[in-house]
Amino acid sequence: MKKLINHPDRVVDDMVDGYAAACPQYIRRLAGSKRALVRTELQKGKVGIVIGGGAGHEPGFMGYVGKGFADGVAVGNIFASPSPEPIVEVTKAVDQGEGVLYIYGNYAGDCMNFDMSAELASLEDIRTATVRVTDDVASAPAEQTDKRRGIAGFVLLFKVAGASAEQGYSLDDVVKVCTKANANTRTMGVALSPCTLPQTRKQAFELADDEMEIGLGIHGEPGMERGKLETADEVTVRLLESIVSDLKLAGGERVAVLVNGLGSTTLMELYIVFRKTAEFFAGLGVKIHRSYVGEYVTSMEMGGCSITVMKLDDELASLIDHPADCPAFTQV
Amino acid sequence: MKKLINHPDRVVDDMVDGYAAACPQYIRRLAGSKRALVRTELQKGKVGIVIGGGAGHEPGFMGYVGKGFADGVAVGNIFASPSPEPIVEVTKAVDQGEGVLYIYGNYAGDCMNFDMSAELASLEDIRTATVRVTDDVASAPAEQTDKRRGIAGFVLLFKVAGASAEQGYSLDDVVKVCTKANANTRTMGVALSPCTLPQTRKQAFELADDEMEIGLGIHGEPGMERGKLETADEVTVRLLESIVSDLKLAGGERVAVLVNGLGSTTLMELYIVFRKTAEFFAGLGVKIHRSYVGEYVTSMEMGGCSITVMKLDDELASLIDHPADCPAFTQV
Repeated sequence: MKKLINHPDRVVDDMVDGYAAACPQYIRRLAGSKRALVRTELQKGKVGIVIGGGAGHEPGFMGYVGKGFADGVAVGNIFASPSPEPIVEVTKAVDQGEGVLYIYGNYAGDCMNFDMSAELASLEDIRTATVRVTDDVASAPAEQTDKRRGIAGFVLLFKVAGASAEQGYSLDDVVKVCTKANANTRTMGVALSPCTLPQTRKQAFELADDEMEIGLGIHGEPGMERGKLETADEVTVRLLESIVSDLKLAGGERVAVLVNGLGSTTLMELYIVFRKTAEFFAGLGVKIHRSYVGEYVTSMEMGGCSITVMKLDDELASLIDHPADCPAFTQV
Repeated sequence: MKKLINHPDRVVDDMVDGYAAACPQYIRRLAGSKRALVRTELQKGKVGIVIGGGAGHEPGFMGYVGKGFADGVAVGNIFASPSPEPIVEVTKAVDQGEGVLYIYGNYAGDCMNFDMSAELASLEDIRTATVRVTDDVASAPAEQTDKRRGIAGFVLLFKVAGASAEQGYSLDDVVKVCTKANANTRTMGVALSPCTLPQTRKQAFELADDEMEIGLGIHGEPGMERGKLETADEVTVRLLESIVSDLKLAGGERVAVLVNGLGSTTLMELYIVFRKTAEFFAGLGVKIHRSYVGEYVTSMEMGGCSITVMKLDDELASLIDHPADCPAFTQV
């Protein structure tokens, strides 16, 4: 696998350099840390939103710092959690006395490093709270949702967090609405081809030329089922049936839908998947309030896609509708 | 190569179905044509902007219909020009008596079909004018710029066309500023890996495991030079030196820069390319007025990227700064 890089050991730092140079209107780098980025202009007097995670998921997570989204991000190495140092630096930079929410995917490394950062922040008299995203249906059974991983549902959760903070919610209320949003959000993915790590240029896993894997994680974690590749419509229905059953979604409800490409799957294919998604929800009597189709959280150049569904009440619908402007997500 | 599709013969229609379902706030389909899309709400009393081209370049071209961009698009089959029928339908739907600009890449099929559409439109008393995008440095020598192909420079040209029409320019003046913008725009690309056509699932061309091709076209047209893959910095400098020399760009000037992914190349790599681009222009004393990094015009899942540079004067800078809101390009 060929990659346009300078050296495997430099990919993340080079990328952050390029990002900082490309987006000065959105983000600035904190002095002394290459991996700590905050909004160029913070909105005054609000709860701070801090996100973070491993690199290799671009535009996640750096792309979600901006208006209506997060105030700062800590960037880890490829597929590895950021260490506490940039998390704490970002926390200090975005805190305005209203407290800071940590919102990130439920992975052991991220949980450990953000928890440690919360302790260090408390020593500086900064109040923090945490919401862990657990949208991946495939990663644990319904009775153990707290063991589930976070995948593309991140994006809608970051949006709810950012919008509620901008609307003046207190830290407790941001936590409350994000906890509800997380409970209302499910994602199911399908992988068609692996990604390759820059260090080894080896494929992260193997899939035969005619195979797909349902529920495979964004770092190559094993999924629920491997089988012959089916048509786009068949795959879409399979993903949606898992989501609808797990979410106990019924006719008359409203949802936000995100069809996310994992890296090398074309937008053409993602729109073909969305076509069936719209047909499926119309058949179920579920209204799609807003839809998003594109590459929002990738696994480098992995092939495949995921579908995320968030069940909306009036509060969540209004937060999803809130305007946003960050490099990876602009909504006017 | 695996693809998430239903049937090779249906990919474009299925995609347009999905697109129309996903973006009702931006576009509507004209009755009687699956391949003719226009803005949901046209801005009153302005020149109409009509774009179009083959499918397989998503988000080009459908994604560039909206505020500050085009008013309508005709969608062809994969890598094939749309026929006159949807072009004429779109023309009739967007004309408001101020005339219509056709702006598209300089390919034989597109030239033929848009020219035929212009004749058919004139029979309906609709005045049209044409600007052909010829930004691809690699496709013909500097003394034959009219023979050059159009590639990712499309996007900035569509932006200039849409912004000038919204600002009340007459058809003649839209043509004039787009002609200037085209003369000021250059693109150079590098391919790392081929795309595969849905019909055959065969690779469109071959490149060895350690090779790159400079200047390869977005449909697999031969480039200028094939060689061993170099570092991202080396490749970036190579692309930029061709552009700067062809554009006779000198210190003290201002540019807009677009780093475009061809399909499967990650955003991480594109930011690494942008990093060197920023360094290169800083060294040259050229100011980057605005930069865009992402997948703007793809060749399905081709690997590689292109760099587009538009030299700006005050008029072009103000049109590039004009707000935009379409599915593939939102700028507040």
